[in-house]
Order: sequence, then structure tokens, then C-alpha cells
Amino acid sequence: VLQQRVVLARIPRGFVAEEDLRLAEEAAPGPGDVVDGEMLVRVLDLSIDPYLRGVLAGRHLGSAAVPLGGLVPGRSIAEVVVPSSGHAVGELVCVETGWQEWAIVRAADAQRVSMPEGVPRSAALGVLGMPGLTAYAAVTRFMALTPGDTVVVSAATGPVGSTAGQLARLAGCLTVAVVGGPEKARLATEYFGYAASVDRRAPDWVDRLAAACPDGVDAYLDNAGGEVLRGVVAQLAYGARVVLCGLMDQYNDGPPSVLPATPLIGRRATLHGLVVYDHEDLRPRFTARVATLLRDGRMRLLEERHAGLAAAPGAFCRLMRGENVGKVIVEVASRDADT
Amino acid sequence: VLQQRVVLARIPRGFVAEEDLRLAEEAAPGPGDVVDGEMLVRVLDLSIDPYLRGVLAGRHLGSAAVPLGGLVPGRSIAEVVVPSSGHAVGELVCVETGWQEWAIVRAADAQRVSMPEGVPRSAALGVLGMPGLTAYAAVTRFMALTPGDTVVVSAATGPVGSTAGQLARLAGCLTVAVVGGPEKARLATEYFGYAASVDRRAPDWVDRLAAACPDGVDAYLDNAGGEVLRGVVAQLAYGARVVLCGLMDQYNDGPPSVLPATPLIGRRATLHGLVVYDHEDLRPRFTARVATLLRDGRMRLLEERHAGLAAAPGAFCRLMRGENVGKVIVEVASRDADT
Repeated sequence: VLQQRVVLARIPRGFVAEEDLRLAEEAAPGPGDVVDGEMLVRVLDLSIDPYLRGVLAGRHLGSAAVPLGGLVPGRSIAEVVVPSSGHAVGELVCVETGWQEWAIVRAADAQRVSMPEGVPRSAALGVLGMPGLTAYAAVTRFMALTPGDTVVVSAATGPVGSTAGQLARLAGCLTVAVVGGPEKARLATEYFGYAASVDRRAPDWVDRLAAACPDGVDAYLDNAGGEVLRGVVAQLAYGARVVLCGLMDQYNDGPPSVLPATPLIGRRATLHGLVVYDHEDLRPRFTARVATLLRDGRMRLLEERHAGLAAAPGAFCRLMRGENVGKVIVEVASRDADT
Repeated sequence: VLQQRVVLARIPRGFVAEEDLRLAEEAAPGPGDVVDGEMLVRVLDLSIDPYLRGVLAGRHLGSAAVPLGGLVPGRSIAEVVVPSSGHAVGELVCVETGWQEWAIVRAADAQRVSMPEGVPRSAALGVLGMPGLTAYAAVTRFMALTPGDTVVVSAATGPVGSTAGQLARLAGCLTVAVVGGPEKARLATEYFGYAASVDRRAPDWVDRLAAACPDGVDAYLDNAGGEVLRGVVAQLAYGARVVLCGLMDQYNDGPPSVLPATPLIGRRATLHGLVVYDHEDLRPRFTARVATLLRDGRMRLLEERHAGLAAAPGAFCRLMRGENVGKVIVEVASRDADT
């Protein structure tokens, strides 16, 4: 049996292009290829994430570089076809599979997926997955929020940003979204419940941000880097907390992002660099809390779904240009039960 | 009776020049000028501090701008000549007097000075004063030190840096000094007990710093900004703590200091902007601890003393060029008891 997979055709420069990735066919792994402790899984929903841009350029900490012709890495929701002990056939797991239809994975690396009623399984890749945990760690571990604080979030409608923004709102804070484009600005307030939103592409966005934050910015979650980071840091309130967790600008080979030191001193700011892998200890509480909020309709999620593995390169390019709306998922296969 | 004072002759640009300040003569205040709640004091030791550069340029937060012809501000150890209730004639106080021989001060602003045996009164302007409190707050409140941590301090032989470096050494840390010039590099290790020192003027200073910190930098107190800040941040260890408390480079109209965001995220760093005024609550404990350490000879101080108010402008210029060695004090007058 042949399967499709997406491989690296060329190291991306600047914005990733579809030609940097290539669809390939090869023999799919079968039950006979599974050894002890492994499982054969079928990929259903593939997660498309910004950090992959750094992996493809060989500069993501903790990830091996991808050779030319090598499989593009990525996490998926997958269905267990050949189980290992402790797993069952047909069970859904969240696991690193890469961009392909079938994968052999170590059972120890696979997390069982179980969603509350009404929450799509793919939430395990977004609001209930790594992006959500990133936001949860940022908000609960580093932001030290008090009701009434002004909290600014960049990339505010993405899975990290929208989780953080909603958690901060539920904690009684005034939340302000920084987004790219008027559509996302509308979405931020109307769908995700931010009190205000600012389109960073507007020439006067810093003035608009200042107007939306009359008492300054008490906490800021940066997913942007670059000019957005500098602009928000200039608006910090006394005692502000800044969490850095992604540098979208820099992923696309933008210049190294920098922070101005003067406002950090003058406003007595605290800044934290966050890498989600450090915060696995929060996962049980995070999963319980956010699943309940989703189930009760107090938090919302938003996904942009693409059909078929062949759509993955284009979906990734959209994401890296900020043209996506919500968490980007590629539906590689449907479960029999779903259709 | 006439007195000497130093006034602002010209707003400094770049490095402050002696011509930016001017010695003036005017009638000294007398007992008849003292109203209720005030005291007449005679300045003995005048403190010369880097933050004054920003005050003279009208850009120091929380300080009024100095008009042309206006008195240069500054703290002193002064002797009470006409006391207020709660003070006695001949008592020593630490108080804002400006750069002049006599001053009328509010009694409420004057702190009584009492030093342990063998510690000079001028320590109240350095290691036991604002610079020392800055270092103490940085080390005890923000550095979260563990014995064995590698702690880097810039401007490491100045009053802030040398206090921080010695406190960190006494806390069981490997301390590394970043200083300007070979003389200070020698002083850092031989006099202040740093384990190693690096001359930031050496072209390969970053490599030397890396060699002195084989496990990376766990905590960094920045008094420098500019290139030094960027160079040390590139060497941070995982979980590093950075405290920003001064930007010498920028005081001299250098370009705004910036921090690179990538290492702050990758090393999961925490950064704190420190302004000493926020940490007055630490003062009693700070004074008790550091006074004891000085008295017992476990900590050392170093002063560069200049004689006479006329020497103050030159001393300030030396300080801002980093040519001073230790805390800069101008001895404006001697106490009768001292001679």
C-alpha cells in the first residue's frame, strides 16, 4: 500500500513557499513493521504550527534538523490501528506522526484523547493541546493577574492567543487583542470576547493600543516579536509582566527581535521567556479546567480546516503569512465512525 | 557669608564635560533662614552618581529637570548645624543637599548616619546607601541564588556592582566581573574577590566571558546596557535571572539599549527592571546585614575621594567615562572632630 507524505524540498528563506515542500509517495508502514512498544496509527487531523518554520530551517531548539527529502514533522490526532499494551484498536491518540497518512509511533509518546461532549477531537491540537498549555502556563504561572488588570495579547485569535485572552477575561481582566487585519480585529471582540482589538497593520496602531489601554499594559503575552513587541513594551504599566513565547516575525527570517531596556527598568517590569515543554506539570489541571470551560461554553475555539494532506503545504504558508483564521488543521483522513 | 555651589551651565550632550557645570558663589543660608521642620546642615561628603547625568538632561524619572544656572542635585553626608526636633547639633545625616557647602533641608528627609566601628561615614552614600540597597534588592529579591550559581555583574567594581558581587560570593556563587580596563579587572579579583574578571574593552571579551562561565550565566546584574548587556544575555544558562538597574551606556546619550528576545525565550530567562526607590522596605534588614559584613571584614568597600567642591565637576566627568575606581566622593568639608 502506498501513502502520501510531505517532505522538505528546499530550506525556506523568508516566508515559506509551497515549493519548499513536496508531496511524495512511498510504501505505507504495515502491521508487520510494528515492534514491541510501538503502534501503527492512521493520521486523522494534522496540526500545522508556526514553530515548524524554525524546525525546517534547522534552528528550533530541541528538534533535530530535517534533511532535504526528509519528512516534515508534526503532531496529529491519529487512530490506533495496531495497538500496544494499554491502548485499544480505534482509540484516538495525540502523537508526533509527521506529515503523512500512516505512522509507527512509540506507545509511550502517545497521549489518549478524550474530549468533553461537543468539543471536537482536534481541540487536543489547539486549545486543549500544546498551544493551549502555552497560554495556560503564561497566564497562570507568569502573569500574576488581578481582576481589573489590562492584558494585551498578540496573535490574539490564534490558538495560543485566544486561549490566553479568554482565560484573562474570565479572570476579570480588561483584554486587548493585537491582530493582523480588520477581519481578525472584528473576530477578536465579537467571537473571542476581547474588550478591544487593534490591527497592527494600521499605521497608527500604537496610538490605538494606547487608547485601548488608558492605564497602561499590566500583562502582555507576546507571540509576535518585532515591531509589535517593541510597540507594546512602550505601553507597559508599573510592575508589568511580559511573557515571551513566540517570535512570529523572526520565524520568517525577520531581523532578530529586540526589547528596549529603558521601559523595562522605568516601569519595573518582569519578563519571562516561556517554552511550553517546561510546563508539563500543569497539564492535568490545565486539561481539566479548559475542558470544563469549553464544555460550558465559557471559552470558544476556532479552527481553519483544510481537506487532504496535499493541502498541508498551502495551509502552512497561509499560517506563516498570518492569513489563517484560528487554529490550522489538515484533515488527512476521516474516521469510519465520523462518516 | 558666601558659599560655593555647582550649577548647570549647559545641558550635557554625550559624555558630560567640565564646561557643562560651573562653580558659583552666593550667600550661604544662615540660622535665620531655617523655618519649622527644617535644619541647616554643612555638607561634608558629597556623593557623585551616574543617575545625575539623566537628571541634568531632564530625563530622570521622578526628578525635576535642573534649569540652566540651577543647583546640581546630589546626596551628602552632612553635619547638623541648626537642628530640628529629634536631631542634635553635630549629628551626621544623609540627605539631599545638592552640590554646595551649606544647605537647608527638611528634617523629615534626613536619615541619621551611624556606622559600625571602622566603617567610614561615607559608606552611607555607597555600600550602605542607595547603591548598596540597589545591589541588595537585586540579589535578594530577584536573583533567587543557589550556591554554585554563576553570577555576572557589570560595572563590577562600582558601589552597586561590588556590593552585588560580594553578596553573591558570600552566598556561595561563582562570581564573574565585567569591567572597563585591566586595572579594574585586577581589582575585581584581588580586592573584591570575584572568581574571574573580564575587561569589556578587549575585542574578544565575549569569548573570555564564555570561558569564565562554562555552565552559562545563572544570574546577571546589568549596570551597563548597550553591548555589554547584549553580550552577557547571549551567555545565559537555562532559567537565568537578569536584573536591569542602570544603563550607563545610554546615560551618555548612547543609542537606546536593547535586549535580544531569542535567548530570553530559549533559556527561559526571567528579567526584572529594578528601581531602588521601590525597595525601601528592605532597608532595615539591608543595613543590618551589610553593616555587619563590613564590620567583620567579610565585605569591602572602595572609594575614590576628591578634595573640595571645585573638584566635583571633574570627578563627575571621570565617573561618567568609567575612569573612576570605586565609589566617587567629594570631600566638601571636614568635621572639626575629624581633624
